Amino acid sequence: MSKTIQIGIVGYGNLGRGVELAIKQNPDMELVAIFTRRQPDQLTSANGSAKFEHISTVEQYKGKIDVMILCGGSATDLPEQTPAIASMFNTVDSYDTHAKIPEFFDKVNEAAVKGNNLSVISTGWDPGLFSLNRLLSESILPEGKDFTFWGKGVSQGHSDAIRRVPGVKAGVQYTVPVEEVIESIRSGETPELTTRDKHLRECFIVPEEGADLEAIKEAIVTMPNYFADYNTNVHFITEEELKAEHQGMPHGGFVIRSGVTGNGTKQIMEFSLKLESNPEFTASVLVAYARAAYRLSSEGQNGAKTVLDIPLSYLSPKSGADLRRELL
Amino acid sequence: MSKTIQIGIVGYGNLGRGVELAIKQNPDMELVAIFTRRQPDQLTSANGSAKFEHISTVEQYKGKIDVMILCGGSATDLPEQTPAIASMFNTVDSYDTHAKIPEFFDKVNEAAVKGNNLSVISTGWDPGLFSLNRLLSESILPEGKDFTFWGKGVSQGHSDAIRRVPGVKAGVQYTVPVEEVIESIRSGETPELTTRDKHLRECFIVPEEGADLEAIKEAIVTMPNYFADYNTNVHFITEEELKAEHQGMPHGGFVIRSGVTGNGTKQIMEFSLKLESNPEFTASVLVAYARAAYRLSSEGQNGAKTVLDIPLSYLSPKSGADLRRELL
Repeated sequence: MSKTIQIGIVGYGNLGRGVELAIKQNPDMELVAIFTRRQPDQLTSANGSAKFEHISTVEQYKGKIDVMILCGGSATDLPEQTPAIASMFNTVDSYDTHAKIPEFFDKVNEAAVKGNNLSVISTGWDPGLFSLNRLLSESILPEGKDFTFWGKGVSQGHSDAIRRVPGVKAGVQYTVPVEEVIESIRSGETPELTTRDKHLRECFIVPEEGADLEAIKEAIVTMPNYFADYNTNVHFITEEELKAEHQGMPHGGFVIRSGVTGNGTKQIMEFSLKLESNPEFTASVLVAYARAAYRLSSEGQNGAKTVLDIPLSYLSPKSGADLRRELL
Repeated sequence: MSKTIQIGIVGYGNLGRGVELAIKQNPDMELVAIFTRRQPDQLTSANGSAKFEHISTVEQYKGKIDVMILCGGSATDLPEQTPAIASMFNTVDSYDTHAKIPEFFDKVNEAAVKGNNLSVISTGWDPGLFSLNRLLSESILPEGKDFTFWGKGVSQGHSDAIRRVPGVKAGVQYTVPVEEVIESIRSGETPELTTRDKHLRECFIVPEEGADLEAIKEAIVTMPNYFADYNTNVHFITEEELKAEHQGMPHGGFVIRSGVTGNGTKQIMEFSLKLESNPEFTASVLVAYARAAYRLSSEGQNGAKTVLDIPLSYLSPKSGADLRRELL
């Protein structure tokens, strides 16, 4: 490949910054511009050198950008943005509202087919790499049971929820998988697990001055949907402690399948991630799938695809012959 | 799919028996016949019901078998068998001589293209699932280093080697990954490792009566290629102990990539297997890829493919819509 793949980024939060940095690690790619709803001239890029454009100018880049990496949120941004952008460009996104993926797929597929573009939806690690592993392990061990655990890591949704509790000035929530349960599965057990059995929730709270700590604690641990079904620990800390120890965005998790072959022979497959930065890792997955989107589109394919539909060789800049020699 | 996939097995050792059992776990598949170089009427199948045929009759099954699963060895069987069978049938094999895969690929590809068949070569877990994970993690974390560990498990080649030592009546060899090294990698280190640092070799030997135990030990630990580069422990046991404790064929291993994103952020990806039976698990992988071979061939594709070239959705009997809804 002599031509570099021309990339655009739509949305410039933590994920967009991660994509900008990841592109620098891939010499076959080049960042053309970052598109934002904010004032472009008031943004500075992580590398200090990227070009910002207002999102309204995106159409002028048709033919100049090979793949748009969409870095908006799943709640309101992507349901609008992906179909709109997919009608003009190849796209990759990290749409992660699991229950609505089928509907999202159909909508994006329609737009991408119309525009003769290729859209890889719902990449990242879950959905994404974890989905690949659920599929792989279920296909190989049809008699078995799989378990997905998340953490230890920061949950943005739960952190937002605790910050809305009266008396809370700041706070962060960690989802923590229960280590003993994972060990029992690794040793071949296939327990029936409730929500409470699988994960703990650890909250680190900076209270407002004079706040009723017991009331905060009670409001959190009984909060429906977010905490009521879990064992939740609430820790009160100072603003300094929060800044010193809770600024990172670590995450990770496990997909474990415990199955049997033959006459009850136990076989265990496990995939795990331990990430110091969730958005930077997700960004790296998006960038690898941007390469796949470009190559599939170059071969004449169009429409919506998921990670399940794409051969892994499309993620690599190496040739098939090199991959067979070096990695197989 | 109303039609079941018609499968043939070529070769009936541990792997062939594993394939026979795995087919029973996949209701969309049916075993037509097992082909052998031995006297077919002197074999009994693991399920007790399979039909045996002499390998010389294989051509009569053209049009009656969708995929042949080749269960011979990589040293002498598969280099002959895969090209020969690929000229008549779709095939799947577990060719695992890493250094010769490029040459094998070309030879099989030529035969498969000529016969308009599709051949998935070198499946199993290494090459196979471990290759997929090396590719996935290298593509997502281009700045990083990956480590493959095997074990704890029985190595057939090393077990054969110790059984050839004078004075050895019977024996088995386990390859054991060094746990402390794996832990250091999981904690983010990327050490430079020699062969000796990564794996131990544990030998359990039944000596012949009156044999010189020190001489056996010395012959093993100094054996070039097999043991000289490793720390090797030799344990002498009785025939009863060998039968009671060392009849299984467990194996497993780890592919770990430790990489960085952004400004030195550490990210770790790991895939691991813990197998009570190596041949039964490998067989299960072959059967899943037989489904892929059948589907790719039904779509009009031909030639040689590896696991790197095949979307994981092809391994599953479920539809794309079901996979998106249930697994993504």
